Parts: sequence; structure tokens; C-alpha cells
Amino acid sequence: MNVLIVFAHNESQSFNASMKNLAVEEFQARGHEVKVSDLYAMQWNPVASRDDFGSRANADYLVYALEQRHGYEKKTLAPDIQAELEKLEWADLVIFNFPVYWFSMPAILKGWVDRVLISGRCYGGMRFYDRGGLKGKKAMLAMTIGGQQHMLSGDGIHGELEDMLRPILRGTLGYTGMTVLPPFVAWHVPYIKPEQRADMLEQYRQRLRQIDSLVPLRFPSMDDFDDMLRPKAAHSETN
Amino acid sequence: MNVLIVFAHNESQSFNASMKNLAVEEFQARGHEVKVSDLYAMQWNPVASRDDFGSRANADYLVYALEQRHGYEKKTLAPDIQAELEKLEWADLVIFNFPVYWFSMPAILKGWVDRVLISGRCYGGMRFYDRGGLKGKKAMLAMTIGGQQHMLSGDGIHGELEDMLRPILRGTLGYTGMTVLPPFVAWHVPYIKPEQRADMLEQYRQRLRQIDSLVPLRFPSMDDFDDMLRPKAAHSETN
Repeated sequence: MNVLIVFAHNESQSFNASMKNLAVEEFQARGHEVKVSDLYAMQWNPVASRDDFGSRANADYLVYALEQRHGYEKKTLAPDIQAELEKLEWADLVIFNFPVYWFSMPAILKGWVDRVLISGRCYGGMRFYDRGGLKGKKAMLAMTIGGQQHMLSGDGIHGELEDMLRPILRGTLGYTGMTVLPPFVAWHVPYIKPEQRADMLEQYRQRLRQIDSLVPLRFPSMDDFDDMLRPKAAHSETN
Repeated sequence: MNVLIVFAHNESQSFNASMKNLAVEEFQARGHEVKVSDLYAMQWNPVASRDDFGSRANADYLVYALEQRHGYEKKTLAPDIQAELEKLEWADLVIFNFPVYWFSMPAILKGWVDRVLISGRCYGGMRFYDRGGLKGKKAMLAMTIGGQQHMLSGDGIHGELEDMLRPILRGTLGYTGMTVLPPFVAWHVPYIKPEQRADMLEQYRQRLRQIDSLVPLRFPSMDDFDDMLRPKAAHSETN
């Protein structure tokens, strides 16, 4: 298995970095190939802009997704995007390893999503969810959160974690057709004792060893929607 | 009223830019003060890093939120953050004007949230939701979306729009205590005719004229949770 770890933390000694290092060791020890995109170390540029395109379908008016399609077809995407796209093509499993900022990804990682998950390859032309362009690949979030687990549960103050992560789990990873594994969460990391952190790393190791047997999250099937993306049942009722 | 528009689009002729220009004119015509943070024009840096702090509480190990608190107290935050924070302090209403990327903000705008909504001022120390640090200010999203409205509805393929926007509406704006107005959405913008775009701009103008009478979204009250952030009712039942 080829594993890509997209890693985003601004402190090289962080718990996130320990998770990343553990995952590299663990996968390599089991005979897998691993590549790491360490976004802070790479000084990754997260800003989607006109500079991302070596040639333009429309030089006078930028529609970012349309230029992604053009750049992909003409192989004129910016070199940093192209390099990440090649890693993504290579990967069977992609792990996103990051600290939760505002119930979402840090901007440097959001900009990896914005710039690398390009229209024309990863989605587009009615290809999303179970017809998405990245079908066959697996994805998993591996995150740290400052809060405690009871704060992100059904009756917790912020509600269910998966509801907060919906635009990532469903709207991004599921949307591109990836098989989305349940997220791994290290809770309350800044506030716990070293022994508890060691326990959490061990839990992460166990999670990685179980990766082939995890039950993926479920998302809509395109089969249930018509060509206008209206629900098939509702459509037939109203016509 | 003081209005801050945080604007993020990479095409200066875009529909988003027209929305921004319209809002500036509309508010000024009604006697309000307006400031615009045009993130692309400013070449805003969205990456939360050690460079954001002129002095450090802990120079050896970066915990971003703790350094935000330190930098705020000592007035040593990076000048670009400080400048945005001053606009935020000044504002009674903040409008976030952006194209939806992956059911969320473009990275350049997410990085405004990550870097400007600092711990110690905007939240922290049990101050969030109705005790959040930005209580008294209003916020509204003004967005364009490539998809159509029926795709983001109860039985639509992506489910409810507000569920996809949850980490922004509730997890970010509501979390800081802001009064969150219903988002304004211009649907299917890249694919519609000029007359339809003109209609949408007119709808946006009407929305802005109604801003004082909009019913805000509702979020949890800290009064319903104990000091451990457990629900008070559930807590008393289980003890």
C-alpha cells in the first residue's frame, strides 16, 4: 500500500509531529511505502490564484475551477500543485494529520485541498460521491483537538464531532469519491499529562494496525439522484 | 454603524467583487462607515506560524493559541494581524464575502479566521457562544456557490446548506459570541445569465436593507452547561 501523509503543524516537536512520525514508522515496518507532505516545512502556498496556471483557458477572467481543468489537460499547473497531485495519484491511502483550528483544517491545509483536489481529475462533470474521481483511494483524518470528547457529542455543547467535520468528511473527501475512514481524534492534547499522551499515541498505533478493517463512513449514492441532481423518488412524485 | 467587509476573491471582475462594491455603496449611502479587507489585494498571509509573534511566552515550543493570548496582552502580535484586529474591534457588523470552496472558505479567508480571531480576545477561558468575546457584533456570510439550491436542501444530494456551514456559522462566528445573521447565497453563479446575476445583486441589495430586522441563527447558551461544559440537566441525572 502507498500511504501519503499530508501533515500540517507549526511546531516540529508537537504531538501531531509524533503522530506523523509514528505513522511513518508503523507503515514502513509493515512493508508499505510512505510519503509525507510536511506543509509547514515545504512552506506550502495555500492561496488559490492566477499564479497556479502556466497557461490559461481565459486570460481575461479567472474562474478557478475551469482553469484547473484546463491546466490539468494541458499539464500546465504550477509545479507545486503538480508535485502534490502526483503524490495523490500514487497514494492508496491519504492521512490528513493536523490540529483542529475552528472545527476545521488550518488554512495551510485547506489550501492544499483548494489547490490540489482539482476539478477535472478529482471531481467534475457529474463525477462526485460514489462516482468521484478519487474512487478507490482511502482517506482518514488524524487530528488533535483542544476540547474534551463530551463537548463534541450528541448532547455536548458543540454537538457531534462528525457534524462539525461534515464539509471535510462528506463535502470534500467523500465528494471526491474517496473511501472515508472514521477520523482518529486525540482529545484535549494541550492539557493532558505525558502518560496520557503516550496512551493516545498507542491508541493511534492500534488504529493504524486496524486500518484495513475499519468500517467507512456512508455518503449519498449518485444512483439515487437524476441528471438534474434531484432525488429520483421525489422527482417522480412531483411530475 | 461600522461595517467591515472581509472579501476574498481572486478575480477583480468577479460577481463576488460586484457584491462587495454594491455593499460598500449601499452602506455608505445610508450613512454607515465601511472598511474593506480585500485579502487578495492585500496579499494576506493565511499561514498561522511562529512569525505571528514579536515576543513569545515560550520560545522553545509553539502552542499557537497560548502565544495569541500572550501577543494580545503584550501588544506584540504581527502588524498585519494587529491591523485586522483593530478593524474587527471597530466593526459593529462583519460581512464575509467569498466564493464557497469545498463547502467552506477559501484558504486565504480561513487564514484570516485562524490568525485574527485570537484566543484571549475573541474567545478563551470559558468565554464562547453567548459569553464569547465578540458579543454585541453582528456577522453575515455573503457567498457564491457553483451548485443549485435544490442540491443543498433537506432531501438534496448534499443536505442542508446550514449543516455544511456549521463549523463556520456555529463553530466560528457563533462561538465568538457574534450575532450570526442568515447567510446570503448567490446560487449557480458561474452558469447563469447576466440578467439573473443582476437579479441576484438586487436581492443582495434588499438583504442589506433588511439587515436590522433579520432573525439571527440560534446557538447553545453557556447557561445550560456546567463548569466542565457538561449539560446541566444530564449532569444532574447521572449524579
